[in-house]
Amino acid sequence: MVCCVEKVEVLAEGKWLSLHRHHWRDHAGNLRAWEVASCPTKAGDGGRKGRRCVAVVATLSRPHPLPPALVLVKQFRPALDTHTIELPAGLVEEGESPQEAAVRELKEETGLGGSVFITSPDVALDPGTSDGTVQLVAVKVKCEAEAESPFHRVCGVDGEHTEVLLLPLPTLQTSLAEFAANGFLVDSRVEALAIGLSLSVASGTE
Amino acid sequence: MVCCVEKVEVLAEGKWLSLHRHHWRDHAGNLRAWEVASCPTKAGDGGRKGRRCVAVVATLSRPHPLPPALVLVKQFRPALDTHTIELPAGLVEEGESPQEAAVRELKEETGLGGSVFITSPDVALDPGTSDGTVQLVAVKVKCEAEAESPFHRVCGVDGEHTEVLLLPLPTLQTSLAEFAANGFLVDSRVEALAIGLSLSVASGTE
Repeated sequence: MVCCVEKVEVLAEGKWLSLHRHHWRDHAGNLRAWEVASCPTKAGDGGRKGRRCVAVVATLSRPHPLPPALVLVKQFRPALDTHTIELPAGLVEEGESPQEAAVRELKEETGLGGSVFITSPDVALDPGTSDGTVQLVAVKVKCEAEAESPFHRVCGVDGEHTEVLLLPLPTLQTSLAEFAANGFLVDSRVEALAIGLSLSVASGTE
Repeated sequence: MVCCVEKVEVLAEGKWLSLHRHHWRDHAGNLRAWEVASCPTKAGDGGRKGRRCVAVVATLSRPHPLPPALVLVKQFRPALDTHTIELPAGLVEEGESPQEAAVRELKEETGLGGSVFITSPDVALDPGTSDGTVQLVAVKVKCEAEAESPFHRVCGVDGEHTEVLLLPLPTLQTSLAEFAANGFLVDSRVEALAIGLSLSVASGTE
């Protein structure tokens, strides 16, 4: 039995977000129901049309003895009623490639320029409840003089207000734990990236 | 001006998921609106009550020459109308610690036992649209004889149907790209973890 969604029922439509009920067939052939937050940012292929979204893994190599750092943004998120620590992110505009969008969003949100070296496929933001997807784009940041010294910057357009953080890669997990202890909510992709870094060290995969 | 949510308007309530509108005050003091998918799995502190959720980063060291591997699950997700590649995950039950829940869920979803070595704080699943959170728990899997040979296993209770994957850590990103090319949707936390592993190699953080 091949699983599939047979019918989509619209429970509510907001201006940006909708609540759907997906009626789907499971492995045993039974018809079941699942509630879904339907997002404007979905994979553009496979029938799931929507605007594409990118999140930027921006790393900065700095002169010795400064360790390489990850570029993150701190911002208030009304969905969570708190300030979060996240990857810079945004929507891919009409006619833009994901790579161009990543470089533009990084510049807009942090003031930093860079070049792309990894582009992921569309990956699921929250597969249990949402049809939203994002592409992760890794960018090497050009080392500017200002990035060598302790770094603090506030950016923002049109009511957005983001604070830029440079967190050293070797101590990323510890820094994130400190932010969490101080009431900030870390994004799950940032935490997973930090765990990936620490696994590599622990398992000697390189 | 301190940002905060001043009023929560309920637009629709499903059985498991709700659509809310958060009326919030921005940095400039303006009152603005943001639509939110409200989930049953929210951080239990800070006023955001809900059931807690864990996702398990389970790694397996194997005898030479087999490289260490990450334990993932493949399952159909009605929200995305496709099969996904994700971390094993589930809800923390009443009276359980996140660590106990992680070990139990890993056993239920993959048949593998293990011991916890990292527990993250609650981290945001999709801060742009949802109030959902998860704790990432890293588990070292006990190396059983069966895990040494090519591994394929299907688990499932109560209509759930998950297929277990063991993906070698050194080639994780390549394996994920192959799954994506074959129509599977990789979870963003798994992709971020893979990028973290590759960053560590590239930047020489250890």
